[in-house]
Amino acid sequence: MSADPHFQKVALIGIGLIGSSMAHAMRRKGLAAHIAGYARRTETLEKAEAIGFADSLHDNLATCVRDADLVVLATPVGTFGTLTQEMAPHLSKGAIISDVGSVKSAVVRDVGPHVPEGVHLIPAHPIAGTEQSGPEAGFAELFEGRWCILTPPPGADAAAVGKLRAFWEALGSNVDVMEPRHHDLVLAITSHVPHLIAYNIVGTADDLETVTQGEVIKYSAGGFRDFTRIAASDPTMWRDVFLNNREAVLEILQRFNEDLSALQRAIRWGDGDMLFNLFTRTRAIRRSIIDAGQDSAAPNFGRNPKKK
Amino acid sequence: MSADPHFQKVALIGIGLIGSSMAHAMRRKGLAAHIAGYARRTETLEKAEAIGFADSLHDNLATCVRDADLVVLATPVGTFGTLTQEMAPHLSKGAIISDVGSVKSAVVRDVGPHVPEGVHLIPAHPIAGTEQSGPEAGFAELFEGRWCILTPPPGADAAAVGKLRAFWEALGSNVDVMEPRHHDLVLAITSHVPHLIAYNIVGTADDLETVTQGEVIKYSAGGFRDFTRIAASDPTMWRDVFLNNREAVLEILQRFNEDLSALQRAIRWGDGDMLFNLFTRTRAIRRSIIDAGQDSAAPNFGRNPKKK
Repeated sequence: MSADPHFQKVALIGIGLIGSSMAHAMRRKGLAAHIAGYARRTETLEKAEAIGFADSLHDNLATCVRDADLVVLATPVGTFGTLTQEMAPHLSKGAIISDVGSVKSAVVRDVGPHVPEGVHLIPAHPIAGTEQSGPEAGFAELFEGRWCILTPPPGADAAAVGKLRAFWEALGSNVDVMEPRHHDLVLAITSHVPHLIAYNIVGTADDLETVTQGEVIKYSAGGFRDFTRIAASDPTMWRDVFLNNREAVLEILQRFNEDLSALQRAIRWGDGDMLFNLFTRTRAIRRSIIDAGQDSAAPNFGRNPKKK
Repeated sequence: MSADPHFQKVALIGIGLIGSSMAHAMRRKGLAAHIAGYARRTETLEKAEAIGFADSLHDNLATCVRDADLVVLATPVGTFGTLTQEMAPHLSKGAIISDVGSVKSAVVRDVGPHVPEGVHLIPAHPIAGTEQSGPEAGFAELFEGRWCILTPPPGADAAAVGKLRAFWEALGSNVDVMEPRHHDLVLAITSHVPHLIAYNIVGTADDLETVTQGEVIKYSAGGFRDFTRIAASDPTMWRDVFLNNREAVLEILQRFNEDLSALQRAIRWGDGDMLFNLFTRTRAIRRSIIDAGQDSAAPNFGRNPKKK
């Protein structure tokens, strides 16, 4: 435990994978004197209580955010506007309101208008997660070595930005600051379109009449299984991501489609050089990601070979 | 070591990831009295010699296959025809010639005409691999719990098929028998198109002007990094796969494109239900793959979180 907590009371609005991981990490590192968790569903609150990562649990927004000096929206981004509107009268003067949403322009658009005078809106996005969801999926190490992007609005309070930055650094992350629109474009290519493509190919496989689902499952070790991991991510969260980052996702998808058409043409016409050149170029990017500490160098991500 | 080796001499034509893994597994389980390895390049032979997984190493096909009762083609599939033509006069009567290629119709087409009378052609495809390549990438456990598909031609010698099946089972695999054309369609969806899509999105990311390569690398933990693993696979092998499974790959790609267009339209018009329904359906397939023992249930494939 560090001597001084960064915040007296952190209110986590949403206690799924990200919210619960923040709670575990805050606990371990002593970053909050009090951790309050909010969830709408009784089942979620009961799971959180059993695990015990929060100091108080609430199905009432007002009591959850009361006296909090940091409020973090950690629900699907489609809910942020309504939640902020509802909690606004109960927010403390000088509090920071932040989030962990995977889109940022929409947060400014939906949350901004409801934030009271004297409360600091500083959107944030930790680039970390797994395919699992719910309060039982969280763990304290989730943010370690990962990047967290802050998108403070123009004129944001510098002290509040610094405080949030120090908090995410204490959670184990590296912190960057970015414009919301640029964030949304970067994430469209590094996260949103990859998820869409993974969901799509798993759907295509599921629909084939000539190949059974049993065959798809048995022979998935050829590459398909990697896509199914991504396509097992939380459906509500991802629906909201696509609905709220439409412009950037459609822009990247258009480029992806053009490039795929060129590859398709190369296969049809037997242009081996074009294929070979692309397949060589893409290897270098993998190497850079490993060198940057953003993935494991172990073959197959270090999945353990099945023991007899 | 089991008491009786399955084969007296196994000639591995190609000693990259798959060939060297077979050698390691054969050694460990005592499946071959003599393991001979062939490679064209001196550098490859030197690496193999340093690792020491073969009893003899050859840059000459004739000496490698002489007296072998099992010959396994383990080079890129585009080389199979020429290699078989060259080794044909030196093959022993009663020998089995097999392969580990990811396409099967093309093997029957390219290898079949060169196989001498009295030699048994039984194509095979172990559905196992990693993104790494070369003789130093192999390991004995690669095939354990994975499937190996045999595609014996009509009228193939039942004893030879049985012998190859028992060999692959001894290497740790489950064995299935299939028609070459059906194999190629199954693999197009479980392996070839996923690889093409992964190569494609990594290429798209590399070409963006508005997002730097540094940003793609830093924020890759959002999903993209999973694709880069697949897109780091051996370029020559994969070029040959696409050139030799054109029909099935184009068929699956067409379906993938239609499905992606529908998703794109749903995003453009804000059809959240369509997105949510697909994203829910794809979760079930992930669960089935884990239940079938074809992937790890651990979040993020069990990648270890980065320790401080």
